[in-house]
Amino acid sequence: MNDVEKKVIEEIVINTVKKLLAAKDSPDRVVLGISNKHMHLTQEDIETLFGKGHTLTNKKDLKQPGQYAAEETIKVIGPKGNFDRVRILGPARPESQIEISLTDARSIGIKAPICESGQLEGTPGIILEGPCGRVELKQGVMVALRHIHMPLDVAQKLGIKDKDFVCVETSGIRKTIFCNVLARVSDEFDFEMHLDTDEANAAGLKNNDYLKIIPNR
Amino acid sequence: MNDVEKKVIEEIVINTVKKLLAAKDSPDRVVLGISNKHMHLTQEDIETLFGKGHTLTNKKDLKQPGQYAAEETIKVIGPKGNFDRVRILGPARPESQIEISLTDARSIGIKAPICESGQLEGTPGIILEGPCGRVELKQGVMVALRHIHMPLDVAQKLGIKDKDFVCVETSGIRKTIFCNVLARVSDEFDFEMHLDTDEANAAGLKNNDYLKIIPNR
Repeated sequence: MNDVEKKVIEEIVINTVKKLLAAKDSPDRVVLGISNKHMHLTQEDIETLFGKGHTLTNKKDLKQPGQYAAEETIKVIGPKGNFDRVRILGPARPESQIEISLTDARSIGIKAPICESGQLEGTPGIILEGPCGRVELKQGVMVALRHIHMPLDVAQKLGIKDKDFVCVETSGIRKTIFCNVLARVSDEFDFEMHLDTDEANAAGLKNNDYLKIIPNR
Repeated sequence: MNDVEKKVIEEIVINTVKKLLAAKDSPDRVVLGISNKHMHLTQEDIETLFGKGHTLTNKKDLKQPGQYAAEETIKVIGPKGNFDRVRILGPARPESQIEISLTDARSIGIKAPICESGQLEGTPGIILEGPCGRVELKQGVMVALRHIHMPLDVAQKLGIKDKDFVCVETSGIRKTIFCNVLARVSDEFDFEMHLDTDEANAAGLKNNDYLKIIPNR
């Protein structure tokens, strides 16, 4: 390789890194976390499924502070099919819920509504099976509304309030603009967008891709 | 129900039907067909899988003229999983190919590129198993590029040429703008947009929904 070629490569590297860093630091670029199907459980349901006094074991910290993927998985039994090992996210919550994609919902024969996490009224129930017992959830099966976790300082820079809707634009051959993305603003959050696997695959996205926030339309 | 209530309902029905008909007749509204995973086969592969001299049986006509879902299904064997019954679409084609979603691709452990139907160069192979034999495809596994089949008169009204890209806008809580939608213009086509199950689920769409064509961005 001669000196001119070296110079050209050096320039490409500098420009690419600059571009990546600029995107990373720009307040309207948000990093993507793709949610595979997962469960949140009450301490009571954890003990029914895994035994009296059982507490979840942290396998891996998630980006949102205090949240983690647990070592524990459970079997979920639907009307027309099962999921053998659904990951539980910790810590325990006041209500149990399972978040799946519409593709997942169809595969086990359940009609899950698209709603905000925690808004369980009217969602269907399902059967959970752990090594020590079964839980028959009366409600809690949902497809999560696409959303962004946003710390207060970022929200202020972008002029966004809690519960506002925004659009998020991707790039590439499957370029997609996701509208009605719910902004959830709190200083307890790390800046991160959550899509489910259907949404991420529809746009050909990978975990940790950077996406652009634009006004809702 | 009193006369006023009857009048109100009558008015709602009239307005709704008018709106639906207007959407249906507007050239920028296209009807959606959702593609589940499916195969196209050469006559040679059909005979290897189903027996010498076998021809496909039409189970149901598709919207595109001459195309049909066949009675026949086959087993598709991937590196990390199988699909037991993949629907074959007829008639036979010059090259065999299987169209799956990125969710499907992940579930059987294969890396399938997003590309235009028929452009098989560089796509991975897979094993097919029918009641009479096996076929080892050297290539042909793909995720179809989102596209619209468009008759010439519609394309002319919209100012669109064959191979142009457009955007398509949906509505509802999962409102989405799909960009880089390939327009395939021919008088052999019926006016219809094709999305795969990931894309349709990401936007919360059903078969026969009407979507709006807007300029690409």
